[in-house]
Amino acid sequence: MVQIYSDRVLQADSSFIKDILSLTEVEDIISFAGGLPNPISFPMKEFQESINRVLQNSGDKVFQYSGTQGYLPLRQWVADRYKKRFGMDVTADDILITTGSQQGLDLMGKALVNKGDKVAVESPCYLAAIQTFALFEPEFLPISLEDDGLNLEELEATLKNNDVKLLYTVPNFQNPTGLTYSKEKREAIFEIIKKTNTVLIEDDPYGELRFEGESLPYIAGGKSENSVLFGSFSKTLSPGMRIGYLCTKSKELMGHLIGAKQSSDLHTNVLAQYAIYDYLTNNDYEAHISKITALYKQQCDAMIAAMEKYLPAHVTFTKPEGGMFLWADLGEGISSVEVFKRATEKKVAFVPGDPFYTNIKGAGTLRLNYTNSDPETIVEGIKRLASVL
Amino acid sequence: MVQIYSDRVLQADSSFIKDILSLTEVEDIISFAGGLPNPISFPMKEFQESINRVLQNSGDKVFQYSGTQGYLPLRQWVADRYKKRFGMDVTADDILITTGSQQGLDLMGKALVNKGDKVAVESPCYLAAIQTFALFEPEFLPISLEDDGLNLEELEATLKNNDVKLLYTVPNFQNPTGLTYSKEKREAIFEIIKKTNTVLIEDDPYGELRFEGESLPYIAGGKSENSVLFGSFSKTLSPGMRIGYLCTKSKELMGHLIGAKQSSDLHTNVLAQYAIYDYLTNNDYEAHISKITALYKQQCDAMIAAMEKYLPAHVTFTKPEGGMFLWADLGEGISSVEVFKRATEKKVAFVPGDPFYTNIKGAGTLRLNYTNSDPETIVEGIKRLASVL
Repeated sequence: MVQIYSDRVLQADSSFIKDILSLTEVEDIISFAGGLPNPISFPMKEFQESINRVLQNSGDKVFQYSGTQGYLPLRQWVADRYKKRFGMDVTADDILITTGSQQGLDLMGKALVNKGDKVAVESPCYLAAIQTFALFEPEFLPISLEDDGLNLEELEATLKNNDVKLLYTVPNFQNPTGLTYSKEKREAIFEIIKKTNTVLIEDDPYGELRFEGESLPYIAGGKSENSVLFGSFSKTLSPGMRIGYLCTKSKELMGHLIGAKQSSDLHTNVLAQYAIYDYLTNNDYEAHISKITALYKQQCDAMIAAMEKYLPAHVTFTKPEGGMFLWADLGEGISSVEVFKRATEKKVAFVPGDPFYTNIKGAGTLRLNYTNSDPETIVEGIKRLASVL
Repeated sequence: MVQIYSDRVLQADSSFIKDILSLTEVEDIISFAGGLPNPISFPMKEFQESINRVLQNSGDKVFQYSGTQGYLPLRQWVADRYKKRFGMDVTADDILITTGSQQGLDLMGKALVNKGDKVAVESPCYLAAIQTFALFEPEFLPISLEDDGLNLEELEATLKNNDVKLLYTVPNFQNPTGLTYSKEKREAIFEIIKKTNTVLIEDDPYGELRFEGESLPYIAGGKSENSVLFGSFSKTLSPGMRIGYLCTKSKELMGHLIGAKQSSDLHTNVLAQYAIYDYLTNNDYEAHISKITALYKQQCDAMIAAMEKYLPAHVTFTKPEGGMFLWADLGEGISSVEVFKRATEKKVAFVPGDPFYTNIKGAGTLRLNYTNSDPETIVEGIKRLASVL
């Protein structure tokens, strides 16, 4: 039979992940598998007011075709916030509005990655980043993620011995681990990459969701030309609106990314861009974020307390300072895929570690989400998990 | 210097088109260059009602993450409409909601086209399709578009002598020419392609905008597995919402397209999907479309009358039965790019033919849009165009 499909989709076997996700959707299961924000983060009433204001005031503009780079006032707001939070020297021209920050991954692949190019990733790595980059048929180079960030020796050797196009990181409350890079490691990584041509992605969908400790400056964002930041309103306002953004000071890269976006979807939904901008300028965004982080801290604390109380001592896990996930290690010789099967029978679900690695099968690690269950449910779910270990 | 960008973006030189489009944005120019629907097609009041109803009734669903394939009732509506208009045997499972039908081009490239694969296109062809497919580095095979559709001898020889992955067509009111495939040619093309493994795209953003003659069945849409239809609400409700769709009866292809979409943007804006569905079920869509087509007929008639009256006899042009564009040929030895420069000095703009071809430079053809200017402005613009010929 003639093969009509492209190599890129044929080698992307996502059936394992689909099977897992379908199991987590069984009724009355306690699911720590998803990555859904708690509905508390949706400012529904205020957003409805913003939408009506926009429809009233902006007339046919939100219905018509619009510019590919995105709504200028929203881009200006994003640039101003980078300036305010981190003192970064960026302008609205350095910002591209994306259809969710997921689209940023696709655009970066399009703009940079030829078949066979080398893409360095954290190990473990956000699984949708692996899937998206995989469509550009690169060679993945995994670099171990430690408690305070990438292993520096591995990073240095990898960048020295290879022509690495892209280094993908999630420096704050990483997906899947919940880990955050230390200030020292950020500085050390900057020193290592600035001697190379490798483009660094700092994907930061969770950065606003810090419930402990202090915000840290980006590794290279706003400083280096070979640097791209991703951000999102999905975790603080609404994922359904699909409004993310990326930031780079490289004019040339921005030009290619805008071209790639034009081919991908012309531009992002206009009403959502206007409405989010209206919301941000007419409401107390900081207070809204504080409400979310207070809840997530409580949920995270509940999960950690339950894990300490109910799980066997050989199980270790991360203690996030923010974000939505924590990461457990069941210990030597235990496959979390096997545990997953028993767990779903007991009506509790998580994501086994395997799909977060580019080169490991049968891992003993697993990802737990705490943002979408109340503390009581979290305790019950951890008890169920304990019962199958 | 080390080249960090991908081959695909480096070979995509869109500066010519950017330069042209920037010239058409000069103030007080009469622009026939764009492809904007007339604001009359935006049901702003009714849409605002739909949005408020959705926000009231669907609570947090429209704010949360959602399924990649799209909102089921909207997919069902699209399938039902195909059934009603063309008797097609399709279900909601055969429909994928896309972020504008532009995204369909990207997803089809992702799912099918390896570097060097052969992609057959109409000559002339919708320029954004050329640009989008070009990012997958195919070999383009242009097939002449005649008044009643593709040249059958060229099509047959092209498909016979080459392993063609994809054949891209716009059978109704084609962009850029405004031409519509005859019933006979549709049937003949179906007979030719059904013997091959070539996947046929029928891109149909304008199909609802018929102001003369009768709707014709698709070439292969709803009949063949190796067939994909694209549709859109951009030309009948709002391009700013970015809601398009595609339809294929191939389960395997649909699986790959959903996977590709998940990597591209996870899913399309949820509020827009719900609101469009609510609009469609609570308003008279046919009456709304009739209002648009009545206006476009009047504008098209005005342009044709002015062209007959003011342009020299050696200029020939198409007479569309619907859609948004017509196509003029200035005659042997005249470059429309040269005419374009003189035209913009006289404050009238169009798109020269060159970017619509994969293999022709210095063409004498040009595209004129009539949907976004009133008849008086159209007459004045054609007079200005006549003055530089």
